[in-house]
Amino acid sequence: MKSRLHKYRLTVSYDGTQFHGWQVQSVHRTVQGELQAGFQRLTGEDRVHMMGSGRTDRGVHARAQVAHFSLRENWTPERLMRSCPSYLPRDLRVTQVKRVDPDFHAQKSAVGKEYRYRISNKRICSPFDRLYRLHVWNPLDTAAMQAAADVLVGEHDFAAFSANPMREMEGTVRTVYRLVVLKRGSEVILRVIGSGFLYKMVRSLAGHLIRVGLGKEDAVSTQEILASKLRTARVPSAQAHGLFLWKVYYPGDKKDW
Amino acid sequence: MKSRLHKYRLTVSYDGTQFHGWQVQSVHRTVQGELQAGFQRLTGEDRVHMMGSGRTDRGVHARAQVAHFSLRENWTPERLMRSCPSYLPRDLRVTQVKRVDPDFHAQKSAVGKEYRYRISNKRICSPFDRLYRLHVWNPLDTAAMQAAADVLVGEHDFAAFSANPMREMEGTVRTVYRLVVLKRGSEVILRVIGSGFLYKMVRSLAGHLIRVGLGKEDAVSTQEILASKLRTARVPSAQAHGLFLWKVYYPGDKKDW
Repeated sequence: MKSRLHKYRLTVSYDGTQFHGWQVQSVHRTVQGELQAGFQRLTGEDRVHMMGSGRTDRGVHARAQVAHFSLRENWTPERLMRSCPSYLPRDLRVTQVKRVDPDFHAQKSAVGKEYRYRISNKRICSPFDRLYRLHVWNPLDTAAMQAAADVLVGEHDFAAFSANPMREMEGTVRTVYRLVVLKRGSEVILRVIGSGFLYKMVRSLAGHLIRVGLGKEDAVSTQEILASKLRTARVPSAQAHGLFLWKVYYPGDKKDW
Repeated sequence: MKSRLHKYRLTVSYDGTQFHGWQVQSVHRTVQGELQAGFQRLTGEDRVHMMGSGRTDRGVHARAQVAHFSLRENWTPERLMRSCPSYLPRDLRVTQVKRVDPDFHAQKSAVGKEYRYRISNKRICSPFDRLYRLHVWNPLDTAAMQAAADVLVGEHDFAAFSANPMREMEGTVRTVYRLVVLKRGSEVILRVIGSGFLYKMVRSLAGHLIRVGLGKEDAVSTQEILASKLRTARVPSAQAHGLFLWKVYYPGDKKDW
């Protein structure tokens, strides 16, 4: 029976403002919950399980989250793409559906992930940016931030940058392939690509690098914090609404690092 | 007494999504209501009246609406600018405060206004654009739209483009200085500058030009509709969330037309 299932890879973009994160919950509105309900209504199948590349927390956005799911009936990706918008809320849009082999797994097959953390670094944050950028009034020293970011690139024990190191089942060593501080006008963007990330690790990197940008830390103290493997107040978690899951990489994808 | 009042010109940007328009109402949340309440709390004055350049309807955004108000106490513009963000909601930001002469009037002194109507013209509207662009799936013929737009430039009786011509106290003749159809990637922007606009006139121009872009009307029928001075279903009002009050022009401002 199982071999008769049809498997799909889905790319989805969502505005996290009104979601309680990715993972389905009994009461709150979640991305996984809306996707599963929408595709069940669309296909008429009893239970469609959406397996994401990973969870995103409450309030975090996604430009291109990836999930897989299977159907009994043989729908073409084009038909799913054409029909699904009517079954989904407007703050969640499917941008691609592809057929995949039975061994594809959105989480286990992923070889890397890119996140971006966006900061509006000026006196007044535009009302149109307020849901999609962290507002930092004081000027950020992006050169200092890049120097500290360089310390964090590579394979390290990132326990000091996890919100809960004890909960990490696979240990706290991860590889950061790239960590770049971009400046575009008054916007500062942290672009990070890694093999995988600990719980709230990207927001912890952002929170710490903002402290660097404000002159409260520097590359030397970043090195000390990393080596300490201890989470302290020197590594705050930056707010959720600046964070975007930007891209999930799978074998065969062009690597951008 | 009146000569002792201090008069200010204020520029304000707002995300119209959660406002019931500009004009203060007893129950609903409005831009004028929030501004007046905020500046009353900030200054401690009993009644601060914000006179806008004009009303914006429910759901319409503003990049740069202008209002004037007067205070008994002599506040510097810098002090007002610095203090006011704490007294205002985040979907409403004051971007400039200037002292003005007693004869300045935000509405009566205005010599022109620019609006922009923004359209996401692609198959899938990004969740991050959904509150700030009208989504039109079918490809728009922007050359045809510009040809029809050219018919509308100049001084005309725009009764066919008013939602309620009978309510226009000053008649239905207005001057459109510029009406340009811009294409930026998959976004189509209607940029219109005029001496003033009738009730829902910009959304009516947008609704009609979208019909032109979809091949349902053309420059010739636009000419007929304009000459008819009759509002019909051929001129629908485009939805509020694509519309931005972009700029208000006063004597001395550099004219961008």
